[in-house]
Order: sequence, then structure tokens, then C-alpha cells
Amino acid sequence: MIDHSISPQLGVIGGLGPLASADFYFKLTRMTQAFRDNEHVPAVILSLPQLPDRTEAILAGHDGPLAPLKAAVSTLNALGVACIAMPCNTAHHWYDQLTGSSHAEIIHIGDAVVAETHRSLDRGKVAILATQGTLVSGFYQDRMSAAGYELCLPASTESQERVDSAISLVKAGSIADAATETERALEIARSAGADIAVLGCTELSVVGSSVNHINGLVVIDSNAALARACLTRLGFAARDARGLPIVSEPRGRDRLPWHSEQRA
Amino acid sequence: MIDHSISPQLGVIGGLGPLASADFYFKLTRMTQAFRDNEHVPAVILSLPQLPDRTEAILAGHDGPLAPLKAAVSTLNALGVACIAMPCNTAHHWYDQLTGSSHAEIIHIGDAVVAETHRSLDRGKVAILATQGTLVSGFYQDRMSAAGYELCLPASTESQERVDSAISLVKAGSIADAATETERALEIARSAGADIAVLGCTELSVVGSSVNHINGLVVIDSNAALARACLTRLGFAARDARGLPIVSEPRGRDRLPWHSEQRA
Repeated sequence: MIDHSISPQLGVIGGLGPLASADFYFKLTRMTQAFRDNEHVPAVILSLPQLPDRTEAILAGHDGPLAPLKAAVSTLNALGVACIAMPCNTAHHWYDQLTGSSHAEIIHIGDAVVAETHRSLDRGKVAILATQGTLVSGFYQDRMSAAGYELCLPASTESQERVDSAISLVKAGSIADAATETERALEIARSAGADIAVLGCTELSVVGSSVNHINGLVVIDSNAALARACLTRLGFAARDARGLPIVSEPRGRDRLPWHSEQRA
Repeated sequence: MIDHSISPQLGVIGGLGPLASADFYFKLTRMTQAFRDNEHVPAVILSLPQLPDRTEAILAGHDGPLAPLKAAVSTLNALGVACIAMPCNTAHHWYDQLTGSSHAEIIHIGDAVVAETHRSLDRGKVAILATQGTLVSGFYQDRMSAAGYELCLPASTESQERVDSAISLVKAGSIADAATETERALEIARSAGADIAVLGCTELSVVGSSVNHINGLVVIDSNAALARACLTRLGFAARDARGLPIVSEPRGRDRLPWHSEQRA
């Protein structure tokens, strides 16, 4: 039985994908103004990588991911959390259907990203790097326009190809190649006149610290934005993301940090 | 209510500390032989940083952490997990009391580390870098001796001071300084004749990828060992830890990867 003497405040619907959720957990921890364990947020992370592909469902017009997302919301409510975060942008397509069945507040990643963007620039042209599912869902376009930002849409299909490729590469564990693809998509956004680029897919957040600085472009990490929103909502002091994890794999070859002495 | 249509296989008692658990989640994911989300382990991570300090309890001779650890075990069993991992070495002091109340198998981090050590060397002198609580508990010494390894104990108190300092620094978020302290402890172990050094505290695992190579010393990361043991137990193919997250904070100053354009 659930023992309610442990009381997580934050519930996380994760595993979409798992590396993106681990990145969120890392950033949530690193952004908490804390010096010892007990100053951190008590949380529960459901890592559910078997959940049906969100973009595929949106493009095909079906709601396959909705039932397991509702099951996760129900379980997190049973565990007594005060609020819920989903470190998966595309899953927010079903946000309205999920909030209806949840006692705990579900923090919308789109709202978190708009708030994070305001910390850098009050106006400007925004490029959204996201899955096709997220873009079809349209919640970023709606929120950014309502907040007074101008949308910057790339003229060619190359940007989306690079974003899709980067996302698949992160899911396959090829971080260095994913960083290269993400850099190229950011470069296209900058050339198209963007002032701000949103890493609007949490797989791109994973490579956030590994991509090179794109001159003049403000890059907003949706995972870091969501982490800040959770901390603020729960009354924990947040600090800027510092020392985010980067993946130590030098481009072009694997590195086995500890295992070089190991037998094959 | 718990919706059992979601069925996590692995339960994690985490948050001890939270950065160490995030590191475990990252390594579990990076070590899974997977190319897409649905090839990963479905899991639930309870992140419970308010759990009483384990070393303090062991040194004072009380069982303060036992009740909340049992509550976590009970909750994970209610969620239907097949096995449980604790990415906190010191908490294994209460392992025997926890297994009695658990239907799900609890994987012992000490067994995982011995198996991981065997992958590198069949014999040799082993130094254990761990909390004073873990060392008083004695489960590493027992297991390593039983497995035929010789224990390598440092002659001075400096090693433990460096280890304790590194652990506190990780908990406080000062990764670069923690790496320096860990390097020094590893150097002391090597000078004392150790062939193998166990990072027997998962806070040290966090800085594992950030410390410089210590010539001739095989370093075993208890978090990576535990991740491999979980994957093996659940029938997932494991690969060597590659591209572990390192923290991108250059020593001596903070780095704000994305936020350099932000207003203060």
C-alpha cells in the first residue's frame, strides 16, 4: 500500500524520453537554491517510455497517448503530489484533457517557456525548435503571439529535418551528432532573423549544454524553464541553471571515462 | 487511485541525495542498449531528500532512516515494481530490515559493485571511498574480502577528510571543488598501493566523469554498477557507460551556459 508518511510534492510524468527526464531531474536539482539534501523538492518521477509516440498520434489524428497519460496523472494524484510536470513538450497537446481529471495542478511547459523568455527579452522574433506534433498542436505559437512575440518561421524544410534528426539521435544515445544537428537548426533560425530560439523539445534540452554558442541568439531551454516554474510554484528558491550536465563524449569517437582499464 | 495500466518494473529509492539519483537515472538510461524510447526500462523514482541523514544515524546508533525507507519500499511495492534499487550506499546499512517487508527484490549496491569490479580485475587491493556510515556498516569490507580482494586502508585520516568534503561539496552543488577533493582521495589510495578504488558513495559517482584519470588505478563507480545490475536483473541488454554526464562548470568559476544573454 501507499505509505503517506512519504509525501512527494512534485509529480513528474517522465520517460518521454528517459534521457530528457533525467536532464529535467538534473536541472531541477541544480537550479534549487540548496546546500544539503533536505532543502530539495521531494518528488516522484514516473518514467514511462512505453507510452505511444506523441507526434505520430497527433499527425495521425488519434489519442493513443491520452489513456496512459491519464493513468499517470491518476497515480501521481494518489501519491499526493501538489503539482505535476511533464518534461515532454509534445504531450502537452492533451493538456486540457488531463487537467480535468487532476486534483494536482499541472504546470504547462509553454507557460514556463514564455516566462523564461521574458527573463531575457520582452519582444523579438521567436523560432520554435520542436517536434512536428508540438507545432501542429500550436500551443507555442498561441502563447508566444499572445505574449507579444513575433513568430519566426524558417523558409525551408531543412530546419525541421535537422530538429527531427537531433531528437532521434538523442533517443538513440548519439549525443554529439545530435548537438551538431541542433547547432545547424539554431544557425538556420539565426539566419532567418530570430532573436530567440526555443528548444521546445526536451530531447534538445539534453544537448543544450553541448552545442556551441550561436552568436546573438538567445536560446531558451524548455526543461530548465519547466524546472524553474516547478520550483517557483512550490516555493523553493531557484537559481540560474549552472553547471548543467554535458555529455563528455568528444565528437567523432566514444569515450569510456572509467572503463578504459576494463577487459572487453 | 493507482492506475495499474502503467506498470513500472524498476523502483528507485532516491533523493539521497537528489543529484546522485539524477546521475543514476542518467546512467541507467545511457547504459541501456536502446535506440528509441520504448526500449528503455519503465521505472518510478521516489526522490525523498528529507530522509534523515544516514551516516549520522549509524554513527549515533539509531534507526531514524529505517521507517521512511520502509515507507518507500511499501509504496514501490504498491506500484507493482519487480525490483528496487537504492542509489545511496549508506542506506544499505538497513538492507536486511528492508528486504523482509518487500515483495520486490532489492538489489544490493555492494553486490553490484563486486560484480562490476570482477569485470576489471579478479584480484588486487581495493580502497573503498565511502561515508563513515558505510564504512562502519562494513558491507563493502565483508563482500570484497569474501570475493577474494585485499582491502587497502589508508594510513592517515586525510583520505576520509577528502571524501567527506567531496560528498558535502556535491550536496552543496560545488561540483568542480568536489572533483578536486575526489582526485586527491584517489591519489592517496593509489599511493597506498590500491589497484582498485570504489566510488562507494553515489555523490562521488556524480563527479566520476569530471575527475582526471589516476594513472594505473581502476575506478569503480557504484552508481554505474547499480545501473548495470538493474538492467541485467530486468533482462535489458546493458552497454558500457558511455558519454556520462559531466558538469560543465569550469573549475574556479561558474558557467551559465545559456543564460549569458540574460538580464540579472
